[in-house]
Amino acid sequence: MEDFVYQNTTKILFGRNAEQKFASEVKAFADRILLVYGGGSIKKNGLYNRIVKQLQDNDIYFVELGGVQPNPLLSLAKTGIELCRTHDLQGILSVGGGSCIDTAKTIAVGVKYCGDVWDFYDGKAEAKTALPIGVILTIPASGSESSDSCVITNDSDANKRAMGSEFIVPRFAVLNPENTTSLSAYQTACGIADIFSHLMERYFTQVNHVDFTDRLLEASMKTLLVNAPKVLKQLDNYDARAEIMWAGTIAHNNLLNTGRIGDWASHMIEHELSGIYDIPHGAGLSIIFPAWMKYVCTHNKSRFIQFAVRVFDVDFPFDDEESIVYEGINRLEAFFSAMGLPTRLHQMNIGNEMFAQMANRCCKKGSVGHFIELHEKDVYQIYCLAK
Amino acid sequence: MEDFVYQNTTKILFGRNAEQKFASEVKAFADRILLVYGGGSIKKNGLYNRIVKQLQDNDIYFVELGGVQPNPLLSLAKTGIELCRTHDLQGILSVGGGSCIDTAKTIAVGVKYCGDVWDFYDGKAEAKTALPIGVILTIPASGSESSDSCVITNDSDANKRAMGSEFIVPRFAVLNPENTTSLSAYQTACGIADIFSHLMERYFTQVNHVDFTDRLLEASMKTLLVNAPKVLKQLDNYDARAEIMWAGTIAHNNLLNTGRIGDWASHMIEHELSGIYDIPHGAGLSIIFPAWMKYVCTHNKSRFIQFAVRVFDVDFPFDDEESIVYEGINRLEAFFSAMGLPTRLHQMNIGNEMFAQMANRCCKKGSVGHFIELHEKDVYQIYCLAK
Repeated sequence: MEDFVYQNTTKILFGRNAEQKFASEVKAFADRILLVYGGGSIKKNGLYNRIVKQLQDNDIYFVELGGVQPNPLLSLAKTGIELCRTHDLQGILSVGGGSCIDTAKTIAVGVKYCGDVWDFYDGKAEAKTALPIGVILTIPASGSESSDSCVITNDSDANKRAMGSEFIVPRFAVLNPENTTSLSAYQTACGIADIFSHLMERYFTQVNHVDFTDRLLEASMKTLLVNAPKVLKQLDNYDARAEIMWAGTIAHNNLLNTGRIGDWASHMIEHELSGIYDIPHGAGLSIIFPAWMKYVCTHNKSRFIQFAVRVFDVDFPFDDEESIVYEGINRLEAFFSAMGLPTRLHQMNIGNEMFAQMANRCCKKGSVGHFIELHEKDVYQIYCLAK
Repeated sequence: MEDFVYQNTTKILFGRNAEQKFASEVKAFADRILLVYGGGSIKKNGLYNRIVKQLQDNDIYFVELGGVQPNPLLSLAKTGIELCRTHDLQGILSVGGGSCIDTAKTIAVGVKYCGDVWDFYDGKAEAKTALPIGVILTIPASGSESSDSCVITNDSDANKRAMGSEFIVPRFAVLNPENTTSLSAYQTACGIADIFSHLMERYFTQVNHVDFTDRLLEASMKTLLVNAPKVLKQLDNYDARAEIMWAGTIAHNNLLNTGRIGDWASHMIEHELSGIYDIPHGAGLSIIFPAWMKYVCTHNKSRFIQFAVRVFDVDFPFDDEESIVYEGINRLEAFFSAMGLPTRLHQMNIGNEMFAQMANRCCKKGSVGHFIELHEKDVYQIYCLAK
């Protein structure tokens, strides 16, 4: 086990009535806020009205920034930064999924920075402070509601990049599974694939003696395997929605990588894909992760065997290790496919035209991944395996 | 799943080098502190000297309160309260296990309260503030290093009582597994039994649809089952010590009871025992918990079957439910016994003389437990089953 420092301060308000209490949490850090949200869904399902009423009842002044889209854009975040400065806003309330939260995080660090906010993503600057953020989560997927990380796409060149800072960890997150029941089966599946990938990025490590977190990760993956079919069969199944929602937060709040070194190559390789083709991040991961596994599995077979046996209950004869490893990957692909997700690029009508360019850009700053270090030619091969 | 609010703000510094960083964490809340510790062990193994040097190097003024014993006493905490007042101390650094931490917690709330600090344990007062606390943990067991709870014994009448408050959650906890290698096999086993019991108190719930936390709890219990024999065979096994130490904190930081209602009757019933007979809490639990299980298991057989199958791998024919349930309890007793712990009162030379008095005092404020509510006559029967 590696030495580590762990702290996660986000206050989680979970359940059917959680939403009723958010205004006092906002009040604790701001009287004047930016309200960030996505398309029209929260206006259709009544959530928008309930939030606005609570803000008004509690004398919280707010300015709106709607229209955040999946694979959120830097340009909209910059608009948000200007709004905060113009109206002297002290905090941000983000209503939605990862795109809304990451837009809020980008605004939060940008407001307090005199340079270009892209500097944080480009490695030219490090956040020293940020506006406080609260979240009302409607899409369990990114884990951004209590994470210290954030991803945004620079619309000038389709460059999708991540940043991390303790200052962007949300102060509170409202998790009401009822707010997720209007998600379509496909949106739900993409979210589950994202959560499952966050667990796998942590699981595939070369660090030894990580028994406790191994088991917690396996428990989390099993939870998704059991509850995904339930919720996809019945989209308003509160109990299954609740399990997935809470697992999604824990999957990415840094608890499950304590003492470990996660991989994260698949996320980097996928970012090039969804940055350019604007496909859902979860659908990109369901394609890239199995390809990555096939490419790297020989570098630590016992880890892939443990994955197959403990997560997917593969009970092949133990003297045939390769079959066990590949059966684990097969069952992962079958899990994604059963949820209606793609596992090959051609299913998304993506050809090999951009492979070289994507591989080049992915490794622009050097190798990616920790399980093994991947270079441009490796990343290119992984795109080929994903064809 | 029940609605819940979850937040745990303790900063965990874990690993071989964690201890080197504690002074700046103390500095963040105080320049003048009370240093609380137990018997002489930290003076023998060099930890005391390392701590004192760091405090001096960082200009942190400290007053010492040593001599904390297992089943810590109210009277010593009151001495600590006076020391804090006399020397105008702003925070507490506790070095040791649960007894030292709980003494520190009692002092922390007592200093800021004008009445008798026992009022918090007697239900007459609720904490509104407390001195900040930092912890350097040397005994993985109580989970008090990042919990909001605290147990103390009133030496005037051997009354052992618990209290809870968000204000007593430690600001930071240093977890260096190397600091636990000098524990004897028996001390180690008692700690593991305490941790295992914290998991079981949460596991045995009547709340349905708690799949995710069920699996996390099972993963945690499995971690102890696998690592306990390793560490008892080789007391300086860093890797196994590390797994147990981290599991001990997570077992009791409130994460694993999110959405659930834990039981806690066994802890209440044990408190009477260790309050009067001054036996280690862990040894009391290894006696009481199996007896409690035998008494209540018919009230939710499926939960006990899941425990037997998933935690202890019982694979009896599924049409013989009673045998599965009892085999789970048998294997739990075998696990405790293999660690050298008692599972019956007579092994600690405790007879039935005080059963009636203990049962009476245990239920003085009403029933105990949530899995099923136990009254005085039930608690008496559980003591009898533990004979």
